[in-house]
Amino acid sequence: MSDVMLCPGFQAAGLAAGIKKNQALDLGLIYSQQPAVAAGVFTRNRVQAAPVRLTRKHLADGQARAVIANSGNANCCTGPKGEADAFQMAGFAADRLGISPEEVLVASTGVIGVPMPMDAVEAATSDLVDALRPEGIKDFARAIMTTDTVHKLIRREVVVDGQSFTLVIVAKGAGMIRPDMATMLCFVCTDAAIEQSLLQQCLTAVVDRSLNRITIDGDTSTNDTVLVLANGLSGVSISTPEKEKLFRNTLEDALMEVSRLLVRDGEGVTKVVEIVVNGAESDAAAFKIVDTVAHSPLVKTAFFGEDANWGRIVAAAGRAGVAIAPDKIDLFFNDVQMVDGGQGCGSEAETQATAVLQQPEFTVRIDLNQGAGTARMLTSDFSLDYVKINADYRS
Amino acid sequence: MSDVMLCPGFQAAGLAAGIKKNQALDLGLIYSQQPAVAAGVFTRNRVQAAPVRLTRKHLADGQARAVIANSGNANCCTGPKGEADAFQMAGFAADRLGISPEEVLVASTGVIGVPMPMDAVEAATSDLVDALRPEGIKDFARAIMTTDTVHKLIRREVVVDGQSFTLVIVAKGAGMIRPDMATMLCFVCTDAAIEQSLLQQCLTAVVDRSLNRITIDGDTSTNDTVLVLANGLSGVSISTPEKEKLFRNTLEDALMEVSRLLVRDGEGVTKVVEIVVNGAESDAAAFKIVDTVAHSPLVKTAFFGEDANWGRIVAAAGRAGVAIAPDKIDLFFNDVQMVDGGQGCGSEAETQATAVLQQPEFTVRIDLNQGAGTARMLTSDFSLDYVKINADYRS
Repeated sequence: MSDVMLCPGFQAAGLAAGIKKNQALDLGLIYSQQPAVAAGVFTRNRVQAAPVRLTRKHLADGQARAVIANSGNANCCTGPKGEADAFQMAGFAADRLGISPEEVLVASTGVIGVPMPMDAVEAATSDLVDALRPEGIKDFARAIMTTDTVHKLIRREVVVDGQSFTLVIVAKGAGMIRPDMATMLCFVCTDAAIEQSLLQQCLTAVVDRSLNRITIDGDTSTNDTVLVLANGLSGVSISTPEKEKLFRNTLEDALMEVSRLLVRDGEGVTKVVEIVVNGAESDAAAFKIVDTVAHSPLVKTAFFGEDANWGRIVAAAGRAGVAIAPDKIDLFFNDVQMVDGGQGCGSEAETQATAVLQQPEFTVRIDLNQGAGTARMLTSDFSLDYVKINADYRS
Repeated sequence: MSDVMLCPGFQAAGLAAGIKKNQALDLGLIYSQQPAVAAGVFTRNRVQAAPVRLTRKHLADGQARAVIANSGNANCCTGPKGEADAFQMAGFAADRLGISPEEVLVASTGVIGVPMPMDAVEAATSDLVDALRPEGIKDFARAIMTTDTVHKLIRREVVVDGQSFTLVIVAKGAGMIRPDMATMLCFVCTDAAIEQSLLQQCLTAVVDRSLNRITIDGDTSTNDTVLVLANGLSGVSISTPEKEKLFRNTLEDALMEVSRLLVRDGEGVTKVVEIVVNGAESDAAAFKIVDTVAHSPLVKTAFFGEDANWGRIVAAAGRAGVAIAPDKIDLFFNDVQMVDGGQGCGSEAETQATAVLQQPEFTVRIDLNQGAGTARMLTSDFSLDYVKINADYRS
């Protein structure tokens, strides 16, 4: 990761407010010096945390100036007080920044069902605003970490017609908050000039092909949030189909990289595996299969064991609820074919496949040979450490 | 378990044919001295092993005399040779029993994609038939074990109008075959006299409420098979609505007990947990929620950690894809209420709930307070041993 992760016009900060018990950074702020257009994508869980509901509301006008985010407490299942607390977090930041609370978005991640320690948040907000600076994005990245072992921060600079615009993306893990919840938070700052409806449209499409195609354990958090703020400072206006395509591809490429970072740092993960299904009757059928294989505990424990156990993969495909022709299935680990027309390719293929599984990242490709439907998903193995981390009592 | 597990008119046997490498029992036979009506329920996996396809065919006439079953090899993804092998297994038994191959049903469980060692099966079949005796059902039960740590055998005797009939049920584990596949096999012998179509109807209904409502890891085997053989010897004819109800209830009660035995002995299982959802908008909605909660790795690792982590349960319910009202949810561990109207009941409730989770078996009840829909499922925890067992290389 580059040492310079700046996006013109944005400042950020992160500090230890005392929300976590271990003195780690737990409160962060991103501030756009100019008004910015903003777009968001949120958890599909029916149980949604108070900050998710508040941020949806504050995004209704398509504008935002700041994001305040904390780890250590999800502010979820906290009733009317939780709603008031989320609004108050926006208010604390707005007061010190001299903007309106409606211009502040809020995101939280951590334990469910525990009231936010609002005294701690209030006391820390002044220092947080004082600490704002362009390079503060690294502290922000650390302040939203939970069981993440590294912070996630990437930058893209794109040259177009002799001008350039920048994307800076900060995210936290598909690893779960110890001791509670998988939560994925992702914030994108850009100085591109883009209309809000187009920004939202790009974000929704791109998230569906990147962050919504990764899994550690299939549990969707109540707090998942992806936000983009675009301040327009670069002067590059995303106003032609070509520039729109360039912006969308850049965002997709960057969020794919973020996705891989998230899976690689998932709880207990030792293997990052891309599951690809080709030749299904439809994309929807391919997705069902890829989704079932990517979540199968039997498949994931075999990855952990570096076991080229294709029988488990074929069996998972078979229970995905779509019509498949078992005797047409071909299956590959990277380029090593293990299954040909539904039958194993023998011990030499197995030896080669085992070498593939000993690598930290590889691809499993399932060719159904039934049609043109295709889908892919990034998954991980299921390790002893995953169970250890998640069996620990909340403490 | 009683020492006497006999059903009049049935004999059985089990021996070590050398299909498994470790000299354990691996080939079993059940034989009905009379012609018996027979019914079956099979895996819903689209990939179905050769013996499953053969047994469906041999059941088409609703009659059977024998079941030959093996562990150590699933005879799945084995192509045309696998089909021929399954038929030959029926043929070996039929020849020695003096019946036709179409009267023999076949079930296999074990590694996928490896040809059946037919020489070993052929060589052992004579001894197997010679060993048939009423009390041989225990050896049969052992011969179908894989990672099961105990054999599963139960018996019910029902008195009706001064007569009685018997059910003897033998099953093998929802624990997976090491090193390959979850497979559930279950065989019911009864001397009740029952019409085939009614028997099939009872079996289908009852399996949906018992064996289809348990999960260890959500992976459906390619070989799952439940068979009933009814020889009519008791003279009790299931011919009135009252007797039908009695038979159905007895079968359901017995298969519920088998279900609990299977989950209790699931791979690495330390907790057996019944998940109950009440008050959903429909039974179908309740099922989706119960299914999602029962399979959530986060929920199951929390059970292993004896962590009364209701946030994970509520979050799993929220991602089940059905409309729920989060602020109406009540949640109980046995009789201890942990959530009231979507909010936690505090630390005293948590202390009591933790005591519940320290027990080996308990119930989680989710009341949605939205309607009359209800569903239940038996699940287990997700332990370190589960991962260890399933990460081991096939060997």
